[in-house]
Amino acid sequence: MSGVGRAGSAGSDERCVVGVDLGTLSGRVVVVRVADGAVLGSAVHEYAHGVVEGEWRGRRLAPGWALQVPEDYLEVLRTAVPAALRVAGVRPEAVVGIGCDATSCTVLPTDATGTPLCALPEYADRPHAYAKLWKHHAAQGRADRITALAEARGETWLAAYGGRISAEGQYAKALELFEEDRPLYDTMRHWVEVSDWVVWQLGGAYVRNASAAGYKGIGPEGVSPSAEFLEALAPGFASFVPDKLAHPVAQLGTRAGRLTAQAAAWTGLPEGIAVATGNVDAHVTAAGVGAVEPGRLALITGTSTCHITSADVRREIPGVCGVVEGGVVAGRFGYEAGQSGSGDILAWFARTGVPAAYVEAAAAAGESVHEHLTRLAGGLEVGATGLVALDWHSGNRSVLMDHELSGLVVGLTLATRPEEVYRALLEATAFGTRVVVEALEGGGVPVREVFVAGGLTGNPLLLQILADVLRRPLSVVRVEHAGALGSAVHAAVAAGAYADVPTAARSMAADRVDVLVPDEARAQAYDALFAVYTELYDGFGRESDVMRRLAAVRRAALRSPTPG
Amino acid sequence: MSGVGRAGSAGSDERCVVGVDLGTLSGRVVVVRVADGAVLGSAVHEYAHGVVEGEWRGRRLAPGWALQVPEDYLEVLRTAVPAALRVAGVRPEAVVGIGCDATSCTVLPTDATGTPLCALPEYADRPHAYAKLWKHHAAQGRADRITALAEARGETWLAAYGGRISAEGQYAKALELFEEDRPLYDTMRHWVEVSDWVVWQLGGAYVRNASAAGYKGIGPEGVSPSAEFLEALAPGFASFVPDKLAHPVAQLGTRAGRLTAQAAAWTGLPEGIAVATGNVDAHVTAAGVGAVEPGRLALITGTSTCHITSADVRREIPGVCGVVEGGVVAGRFGYEAGQSGSGDILAWFARTGVPAAYVEAAAAAGESVHEHLTRLAGGLEVGATGLVALDWHSGNRSVLMDHELSGLVVGLTLATRPEEVYRALLEATAFGTRVVVEALEGGGVPVREVFVAGGLTGNPLLLQILADVLRRPLSVVRVEHAGALGSAVHAAVAAGAYADVPTAARSMAADRVDVLVPDEARAQAYDALFAVYTELYDGFGRESDVMRRLAAVRRAALRSPTPG
Repeated sequence: MSGVGRAGSAGSDERCVVGVDLGTLSGRVVVVRVADGAVLGSAVHEYAHGVVEGEWRGRRLAPGWALQVPEDYLEVLRTAVPAALRVAGVRPEAVVGIGCDATSCTVLPTDATGTPLCALPEYADRPHAYAKLWKHHAAQGRADRITALAEARGETWLAAYGGRISAEGQYAKALELFEEDRPLYDTMRHWVEVSDWVVWQLGGAYVRNASAAGYKGIGPEGVSPSAEFLEALAPGFASFVPDKLAHPVAQLGTRAGRLTAQAAAWTGLPEGIAVATGNVDAHVTAAGVGAVEPGRLALITGTSTCHITSADVRREIPGVCGVVEGGVVAGRFGYEAGQSGSGDILAWFARTGVPAAYVEAAAAAGESVHEHLTRLAGGLEVGATGLVALDWHSGNRSVLMDHELSGLVVGLTLATRPEEVYRALLEATAFGTRVVVEALEGGGVPVREVFVAGGLTGNPLLLQILADVLRRPLSVVRVEHAGALGSAVHAAVAAGAYADVPTAARSMAADRVDVLVPDEARAQAYDALFAVYTELYDGFGRESDVMRRLAAVRRAALRSPTPG
Repeated sequence: MSGVGRAGSAGSDERCVVGVDLGTLSGRVVVVRVADGAVLGSAVHEYAHGVVEGEWRGRRLAPGWALQVPEDYLEVLRTAVPAALRVAGVRPEAVVGIGCDATSCTVLPTDATGTPLCALPEYADRPHAYAKLWKHHAAQGRADRITALAEARGETWLAAYGGRISAEGQYAKALELFEEDRPLYDTMRHWVEVSDWVVWQLGGAYVRNASAAGYKGIGPEGVSPSAEFLEALAPGFASFVPDKLAHPVAQLGTRAGRLTAQAAAWTGLPEGIAVATGNVDAHVTAAGVGAVEPGRLALITGTSTCHITSADVRREIPGVCGVVEGGVVAGRFGYEAGQSGSGDILAWFARTGVPAAYVEAAAAAGESVHEHLTRLAGGLEVGATGLVALDWHSGNRSVLMDHELSGLVVGLTLATRPEEVYRALLEATAFGTRVVVEALEGGGVPVREVFVAGGLTGNPLLLQILADVLRRPLSVVRVEHAGALGSAVHAAVAAGAYADVPTAARSMAADRVDVLVPDEARAQAYDALFAVYTELYDGFGRESDVMRRLAAVRRAALRSPTPG
């Protein structure tokens, strides 16, 4: 059982935990009852600097750059944790643990004490000194070099990452730093995931969490890229693993430290309570929505979509970004895939592609623009738009792992209306998910049911399209802060309240609010559109280099200055 | 020398002619001085029914249907001709001839007296009884059957139409009538081009003009589709040529008749003056803009774009819709190609794809939305959008002749702005023209300079893109009613004022207002984008059937009722 917002007290076990979820634009904090997962209170704090793109401190940032300011994360601890406690009406002494997750791979360079280099005045003007957000895609060229060299050398770790190293990962972003700002690279002592950095600030100890280390780094212990490989990649880069990255890795659900006096002062929580090992936002959400059992695929939707599942078997699946033992749940093999854009594509369209008449009609009907477009699009028959889109406006994570790819709409006519394009974008999101589901099943990882959580659960049309396109029952989990709840589950385990994460999740995870079943007639109609989608997918993602050429032409035309 | 609007009197030869140009949405009339082509007055009349699409008299029309009501054309004669005379301040007795052109192939079924079947009460509810507008594309399937059968039988006339019969032509539209409303087909006596029908109403005699008969029918005399061919196409359809279509064809610039008493009453012009043989709107414009000499290509821009040139040689060019002896100028071989959409694609985008903030910013700057988008787009470097579009929102006329094709935009990102899409659409229009120019030159028809007239001459960015993409000097002819002026030129020849159309054009055609020269650096930058365009062009136009499949899926989803 669970609740959202402030719930009443229950039973005798009043112990609580705090979950902190650091997203792309804001941090969310929940105060959760250990006994039943009831969310007693929550608070959100928007980052003062948000996503730094385009320009920073008068410097132009090239296309693909996306930075964050780490001080923004600490401000979440200072403001939203006390606020959530106040809303919950919970005495601080009732809190027995705190857990934190963050977007990933979002990494920053620190000195030996954990101070971000951007916090040192002499580096405050250097773009590479800041946290590189997950969607910082400027390192695509480096990622390609890593993949190409690994293929050429037959590196065994490549297969675990779908055969392709992502531009979003720790290595590509570090190589970019190494090659574009060598003095800063030399100054750096640790290359730290944001979730681990915040846990370090809370608990006073740096441990790398198994999920980020496994998914966003490369390779489990013992089969990481060798010094020879890194040196062949760039002379001197062999230093990266021993000098900058290597550090003890902890399993999810363990205790990374105990709340320091400073962090207790920030948060108002008792000094010494358990601080859980960090986690990746999407992965932790699987626990929050109760999708940690094999056969259940969690879709964590928002600006982008993450696909998380666990299995008892280890399979290497082309295009699935990672299989990591203990990467989602200790003791199982965790699989992560993703769509680089979903909600942000819809938001982009609503912002830039919808005429005034629609905005006015939406207002007159008391609807948001998204609700208005969704209602109009929902009145159409499957296929009536004559459109198919590729949902690659922010690149493709799975199964192509190529951030030089871009969005496409085909089938436009002079009769095409905005709600038709909107529907095509919704369908493209579902088709992109189907590609991932087929890759998982084709690779031997079963997907029997799908759990969807996050921002896009507010769109009923998309949910039905997903059920129809995937031909699987779709469980809808509509909890306001599923990631933060997942971190609270991990905090409860770290505090010793449950034996392990699956056990905790059975008591604490959010309930499903709805289960949608696929309609076979619509599913068949979608098959024809999906056939077009896959033809475009293969054509533009695998056969033609048109999108990469256009990206290169664009960069040349913008004469991008190289930051550093 | 020429002028727009009301000009002063000049010299002793005060003879005038009237030109009537029947467009897609309105009819334009000019009163022109024979001696020097000065446009002394003009008037425009919007059709009461415009383009009939979607629904007519409570009947749903399938996608691709586009009808007109012939009474609308007569209303132009009754209102705009007298209005133009009044504006010009010209005494009716000074007018020695009248000429008329219309969109083509726009055809209607009439009885033996020329009465449109839709004007008979018993047929007023039958969609097939109305004029099928040039952009009525619902007969694509019939056009494909004609092409396939002609290929299978090795018909010699096919090559003159670029190897493919257009859905816009007389035969495909007639076959649609034959198969969908046989009783109406049987009632019909003549299948008449609108330009010829209006000339019939003016001059009392039905003659087919060589241009429409040659381009929109099939084949010069003697090599038209045989009775056997038509019978093989559809049993009974052999009747089409002898019973419905065949009729004397007259050369352009000849006199089709003399103004009847009834038409004199409509127009206020003297009974008995010369009525010139009809013409196709785009073709007649070549005379209006002075592009009747070989080596000059006229681009007639508006909702769509027509490409017209003449040569002393006969060449069969794949994808160029027609080569017709005397089709543009008597005694030369006329070539026509076209882009099914250009201005209408821009209008569609401005109407459906531009957010309120842009409309407000345009208003604040005292600009139209088009001007605003053009100014923003003009500030971008070539290639900076990262986008390439296919300008097939209304199908593709040249060189693919396929109205099942549709529009496409590739390269979209979350940073894509409306002015970037707009620029991509402008560039696509220019790239589509380059494909035609390369086809003409590749086929042995030289294109040394390009003359552009019509609605899109108002967009300076598009004009420069055209010059750069085509790498040819671009002469801009900005006359308000170039088609009507061309019809006036033909009226002057029909009235005996000049020996032939080229001679008349040298005195009467509009002047160029500007000549743009290509910039080699930009031209080279466009080459990279054009390479992408041609790859998409071939991929979607020749190799993949994705667009056709989407069109079929759409039709099925809409469960189109078959009118008839």
